Amino acid sequence: MISVIGLGKAGLPLAAVIADSGFKVIGVDVNEKRCDMINRGENPIPEEPGLDELIKKHGGRNLIATPRYEDAGDCRVYIILVPLFVDENYNPDFRILEKATRGVGRILKRGDIVVLETTVPPMTTETIVREWLEEESGLRLGEFYLAYSPERIMTGYSISRLREFPKVIGGVNEESGKKAFEVYKKFIPNLHLVSSARVAEFIKLMEGCYRDVNIALANELFKMAEELGVDFYEARNFANHRYCDIHMPSTGVGGHCIPQYPWFLIKEMEKRKKFDYVRLIRTAREINDEMVEYWAEKIILECMKVDKPLSEVKICIKGITFRKGVKETYNSRNLALAKLLIEKGLNVFVYDEMFEKEEIEEMGLKWIEPEEADLTFDCFNLRIFRKI
Amino acid sequence: MISVIGLGKAGLPLAAVIADSGFKVIGVDVNEKRCDMINRGENPIPEEPGLDELIKKHGGRNLIATPRYEDAGDCRVYIILVPLFVDENYNPDFRILEKATRGVGRILKRGDIVVLETTVPPMTTETIVREWLEEESGLRLGEFYLAYSPERIMTGYSISRLREFPKVIGGVNEESGKKAFEVYKKFIPNLHLVSSARVAEFIKLMEGCYRDVNIALANELFKMAEELGVDFYEARNFANHRYCDIHMPSTGVGGHCIPQYPWFLIKEMEKRKKFDYVRLIRTAREINDEMVEYWAEKIILECMKVDKPLSEVKICIKGITFRKGVKETYNSRNLALAKLLIEKGLNVFVYDEMFEKEEIEEMGLKWIEPEEADLTFDCFNLRIFRKI
Repeated sequence: MISVIGLGKAGLPLAAVIADSGFKVIGVDVNEKRCDMINRGENPIPEEPGLDELIKKHGGRNLIATPRYEDAGDCRVYIILVPLFVDENYNPDFRILEKATRGVGRILKRGDIVVLETTVPPMTTETIVREWLEEESGLRLGEFYLAYSPERIMTGYSISRLREFPKVIGGVNEESGKKAFEVYKKFIPNLHLVSSARVAEFIKLMEGCYRDVNIALANELFKMAEELGVDFYEARNFANHRYCDIHMPSTGVGGHCIPQYPWFLIKEMEKRKKFDYVRLIRTAREINDEMVEYWAEKIILECMKVDKPLSEVKICIKGITFRKGVKETYNSRNLALAKLLIEKGLNVFVYDEMFEKEEIEEMGLKWIEPEEADLTFDCFNLRIFRKI
Repeated sequence: MISVIGLGKAGLPLAAVIADSGFKVIGVDVNEKRCDMINRGENPIPEEPGLDELIKKHGGRNLIATPRYEDAGDCRVYIILVPLFVDENYNPDFRILEKATRGVGRILKRGDIVVLETTVPPMTTETIVREWLEEESGLRLGEFYLAYSPERIMTGYSISRLREFPKVIGGVNEESGKKAFEVYKKFIPNLHLVSSARVAEFIKLMEGCYRDVNIALANELFKMAEELGVDFYEARNFANHRYCDIHMPSTGVGGHCIPQYPWFLIKEMEKRKKFDYVRLIRTAREINDEMVEYWAEKIILECMKVDKPLSEVKICIKGITFRKGVKETYNSRNLALAKLLIEKGLNVFVYDEMFEKEEIEEMGLKWIEPEEADLTFDCFNLRIFRKI
């Protein structure tokens, strides 16, 4: 029996895939309503292709969800996949992870295997996660096993990623790595054992930095192209080939994942007074976060072409989710753009095909059909349309 | 008849490929000795696979080399591919390009097509190159045609790149683009017409920035990995997949190409007071150029483990070319590293399998076999070996 702690957008697809591989899975999640849904065979993440049928098939049978750690007390493998946020100063906020890890620690038995999947700052697994487990269980590492295997989930592709994408796992010691690898390879086909949990942690952070830096580069090149009167998309189309992968520009990088990961490395290096080792990833972070200012200015310049006092021009921000097609506004830069324009005193409305008028209004925002606005900014195509 | 101005590492392979497509080619190059070699069928760039046979086959026949522009007076197509350097303040030094372009201008006739291939700052083709041609020829654009098609040569792969790699071409006006495209597609199979010379210029600069920024990212991640005790290469190996392409770390980025191109954009944006549009590419440039300081410190720390006074430790810098396998030290960061250590008062020798002892000594450097040194730094593998 395997337990998955955290049945969110990353944890639930993993739990479902494990259940579908023939294991009995006990999922633990603080959200009691979500647990009930899963046990009834109802999928709380309908936007995840393939998940509906897995939950329908296994929910309440091979996959039991519960808010109580004690219900998972007979499991021999505990996989922790709870969110880790950064606070307003970009420091990691370990509270949820600590609670989940201590919860596992309380039911941990000799010989059990714990695998952390949450993306974490370097050395988290071998230091604080190990300490929390030892404190709560009264066991010492060696009496239990501890490894790290970063999730590579992307909402909309989670099931296929688990089944096809390469996944890495590394132990805090050699035995932990081997034991965890043996278990994981039963449900992850494309699995690779790396030399340590620390390497596995770093792999995930490298990927995040690659994405963030390359999006910042695309944004910077976009600004230059606009300044030079060059069509960025035409240039990108012909610049990209086997050895060149210019990313897409954007209003910034939102969501739970990529924008947080560089900070894990930045904060760790700053603690070590290695300020010089993070200049690029920090600059990339700043560039991406400042894109809302760039777009706000562009929008305002376009508003001036409308024959109305600036404060009366109806501006529609179209698309407020953090990513197209995912109904999630956490750290959405599109929403940040709307709020920035409101702060500047402009007459801002929003529209998003994934949200009803009422949902928009509950966020304290004004809803409008794009056709009714004087000017619409399409956040996902970066195009400004003026009513004529 | 087609003329290629500049028979260097980029121009000669192009001239040879055009000749091999059945055209008569007149190559113009200031280096008389090089011209004589080519006319005798001897290849002055032996490290370029496939070039030997092309020069042997066409040199002095379909491909005539000359130092005199007048000898190319009957050509109807002029391709300019001469070097463009940056000066000590990273500003482009147009002197060679101006001389070559004015040389073409003097022999330019009504209906001729001029194509620039040298990588240049944005808008160079439509502004100064056009002006130089008009001034010298007395013709106006429209009476001749002008386009830009960036070379995508890489020493060691030039012939195959010309024959297989996608290449773009764009005119300073629509007719120029079309005319130049028609000619070029006779010898470049994978050719794409883009909307303007400016777009074509920008495409090449984007590619250069992509490479430079991603090498800087690799260097920054390498420093962090070392600091954390993580094997960078192991992590890179598992981080890279379809959506992630972490590059290789290095002593920096040398040679004629990539380190110059970001400066073309930086200087242009600075002129326009858009300092904020180049923060990432500028930071990347700094990180790459400062890698020699990072490695110098690592080497000195290793020297301290040798039981000798620091100034007596024989240090061998192994590999001084700017890139492995290319006998070229222009802007070599490996050479810069050797010189930095010498400046610091250390006892530095160099070794490179591509250079004889005498050639090294002619550079004013001391030569040593790596086995004789107390400590060897392998510039291409970034490994430090101590004699035991």
